[in-house]
Amino acid sequence: MNAYKVIIIGAGTTGLTARRQVAEKTDSYLVIDDGPLGTTCARVGCMPSKALIQIANDVHQTDVIAQSGLLKKGDQQVDSAAVMRHVRSLRNRFVRSVRKGMEPWEKTHLLRGRAEFIAPDTVQVDGTQYKAEKFILAVGSRPSLLPEWQAVKDYIITTDDIFELEELPESILVMGLGVIGLELGQALSRLGIKVYGVARRRALGGICDPEIQDYVCRKMAEEFTIFFDGARVLGVNAEQKILFEADGKTYTADRLLASIGRRHNTDRLQLEKAGITVNDRGLPEYDRQTLRLKEARHIWFAGDVNEYRPLLHEAADEGYIAGHNAVHQEACFKRRVPLAITFSDPNIARAGKAFGELEKGCFITGKVSFEGQGRSIVKLKEKGLLKVYADKDSGELLGAEMFAPNGEHLAHLLAWAIGMRLTVQQALQMPFYHPVLEEGLRTALRDAAQKLGRIAEELERCNEATTDK
Amino acid sequence: MNAYKVIIIGAGTTGLTARRQVAEKTDSYLVIDDGPLGTTCARVGCMPSKALIQIANDVHQTDVIAQSGLLKKGDQQVDSAAVMRHVRSLRNRFVRSVRKGMEPWEKTHLLRGRAEFIAPDTVQVDGTQYKAEKFILAVGSRPSLLPEWQAVKDYIITTDDIFELEELPESILVMGLGVIGLELGQALSRLGIKVYGVARRRALGGICDPEIQDYVCRKMAEEFTIFFDGARVLGVNAEQKILFEADGKTYTADRLLASIGRRHNTDRLQLEKAGITVNDRGLPEYDRQTLRLKEARHIWFAGDVNEYRPLLHEAADEGYIAGHNAVHQEACFKRRVPLAITFSDPNIARAGKAFGELEKGCFITGKVSFEGQGRSIVKLKEKGLLKVYADKDSGELLGAEMFAPNGEHLAHLLAWAIGMRLTVQQALQMPFYHPVLEEGLRTALRDAAQKLGRIAEELERCNEATTDK
Repeated sequence: MNAYKVIIIGAGTTGLTARRQVAEKTDSYLVIDDGPLGTTCARVGCMPSKALIQIANDVHQTDVIAQSGLLKKGDQQVDSAAVMRHVRSLRNRFVRSVRKGMEPWEKTHLLRGRAEFIAPDTVQVDGTQYKAEKFILAVGSRPSLLPEWQAVKDYIITTDDIFELEELPESILVMGLGVIGLELGQALSRLGIKVYGVARRRALGGICDPEIQDYVCRKMAEEFTIFFDGARVLGVNAEQKILFEADGKTYTADRLLASIGRRHNTDRLQLEKAGITVNDRGLPEYDRQTLRLKEARHIWFAGDVNEYRPLLHEAADEGYIAGHNAVHQEACFKRRVPLAITFSDPNIARAGKAFGELEKGCFITGKVSFEGQGRSIVKLKEKGLLKVYADKDSGELLGAEMFAPNGEHLAHLLAWAIGMRLTVQQALQMPFYHPVLEEGLRTALRDAAQKLGRIAEELERCNEATTDK
Repeated sequence: MNAYKVIIIGAGTTGLTARRQVAEKTDSYLVIDDGPLGTTCARVGCMPSKALIQIANDVHQTDVIAQSGLLKKGDQQVDSAAVMRHVRSLRNRFVRSVRKGMEPWEKTHLLRGRAEFIAPDTVQVDGTQYKAEKFILAVGSRPSLLPEWQAVKDYIITTDDIFELEELPESILVMGLGVIGLELGQALSRLGIKVYGVARRRALGGICDPEIQDYVCRKMAEEFTIFFDGARVLGVNAEQKILFEADGKTYTADRLLASIGRRHNTDRLQLEKAGITVNDRGLPEYDRQTLRLKEARHIWFAGDVNEYRPLLHEAADEGYIAGHNAVHQEACFKRRVPLAITFSDPNIARAGKAFGELEKGCFITGKVSFEGQGRSIVKLKEKGLLKVYADKDSGELLGAEMFAPNGEHLAHLLAWAIGMRLTVQQALQMPFYHPVLEEGLRTALRDAAQKLGRIAEELERCNEATTDK
């Protein structure tokens, strides 16, 4: 009988991070994974998508300066097959790097195959049983598909396949404009593909603030076709194209990109055999602080499988927490300030609390438009709207949402400021260089300061005792 | 006799900021300026240079993706005359915006002409005398020129002229690779101009840390010719080109860009007539906290004229301090955390203390190379080196220097973290998204944490009493 102190199911970002914690305390552990190795992030997620987006945005910027008459484009052409090879080549580099990190331990501690519980302390993989005192479940998620797409199933691509395409299709129906759909939809459009986006809700790219939502919807709809009232897939026509109906008209597309979201892989674990009940969404009850299952105190449930914060950096944190707690006395860790970024252009991002998480009547809002903002003008990226939310009494920064040029960086700055519990007034006393996009953020902070009725003195006075220079 | 409570000499960024403070308290003020209006920054500084750099970098990125085989460039061509028109067009937009801000008061409070002191309380402008109780001197600076360039004086351009060029020259000798020289030299090179850069010291773009200096020198020399041992201007040859000697060889160039620095305009003020003595650099003694002259307590000396922190955002702060103190009871203000950015690509930047300002033996260094850094790979910008300096006992962040992709944003993040007196350990508990350049900064912080001998626990533990989720 194979028996271990800890079995980790899933060798993705969460599982690998958990493993590091576990391995520091014991050599009696096993990592089991039934899929391709290298992490969702490096294989089919963050990395290849960012590689594609980068080229799309670079090409787009060339178009922008050409349209401004600064560049004669001549017969310039994107080589989409070369772009896809480039994406795969970078992807392979990232995957190799992950795989290299696994080399020192995989011969002795990695088992390939699907693990299913057959008892609370036992899983079975390809007919062999493995026992452990503790389990970390980090089995991740997979792209969701809708039954109504069955008629066009041979034309569906997900993030699992899209980066494998030799050539990009001429047209694509992007079902769902959340983070992945918006990122890829915009990128494909910028690479010259005819994109039909279907938004299931107005929260494009995950933006929550209604005013920014409207702005994003308007600006994105200027770039590619977006149907806000859904689309109905009808089937495949004689030219081997997907036929679909939207806004009362019929359209065709070469492919359907399924980007309505991802669903957790818990169903593959046979948790009921371990005596664990799941809710109607298929999830067991777990403690969000410790990630421990409520019904089975020897099992931790970490990473995007738990659908709590399905983001790479949070997955790593959850792996850390689960791994740590599986081999140490249980500790409670604070989660980081929320930070979420959609790599559309402009970026959509939030730091701290999203608009919908704020307590009504308890906050004020500071706002800036990047239309007319100095550096945005220079960058030929005069598009964007950013809001900061602050406690109406203390002035403490609570959160921010944005659709902003280089918003990924502004979001980090804001998330750190929120983490350090800065007030609007204190943030205004920090340095803002010139000419930078951060000055846009300052405009929003000044707007907030005004609404707080705070004196706009942006230089901190010395204490009597200070010797600052 | 024209008499005022306050006379402000100089209607640049500093003077205009001072004016706002003064005007809040009194209508008895006069602003005197003898140059073109619109601020050095908007007319000939930050803004037009950034407009030129932006296009140069966009064009360069097109070249990069073309060289990677992703784009067939065909007969693509930069239209350099159109680029210069574009730069001027944006410049005009920024200047108009400054000028618009002056409209409400300039008819009654602005005097065009050169002010010279004729007594401690009196200046003369075009033969007319103006008295004031208080003066704010914000007369700025001008590009420095060397006497030895006299032989080629008709071929010299400075930032005052370069943006006026209808067409870019075919070749240019850039004398001085500090901030302005490096920014413009690299941009011109990327726009296809043959650039010969002459570095007077190895601190290209103002970088101080010796290891980063070496790295910057090496990487920049890969982009355009740099002479590190000076160059001697010989004269003009028969083809109407500048002839110069460097590294024992003779070269020619169409123009000489004077970028050895800027010198303050104090000499134009006739300070000696106000009974004020100046040092051998032509500067009067002043208090760095209050900006008040030591010999003349009714005069403030603010902005890049005092050569203390010749940066736009500092100039605005100094205008604020001087303006405030000229009309209020004297207050002492803390200066912001130092932040300096050179808009080369990668950016050169520092936050907090530069390497040379650190106390030897009292700090540790954390380092990261952007070669091999995830997002830098994706951006096709795998170049850069960043260091953070922290107190070796407390771990408090003291400063950072960098040559890093999008370093302007990392520098803001670091400057704020330094302003909030974060330790390395606390900074590591802040969120870092994925895949972002900020993860490069995290690598440097982790390196620093290791050198501090701190436990690498990057999630903060909950307090017993906490209710965080």
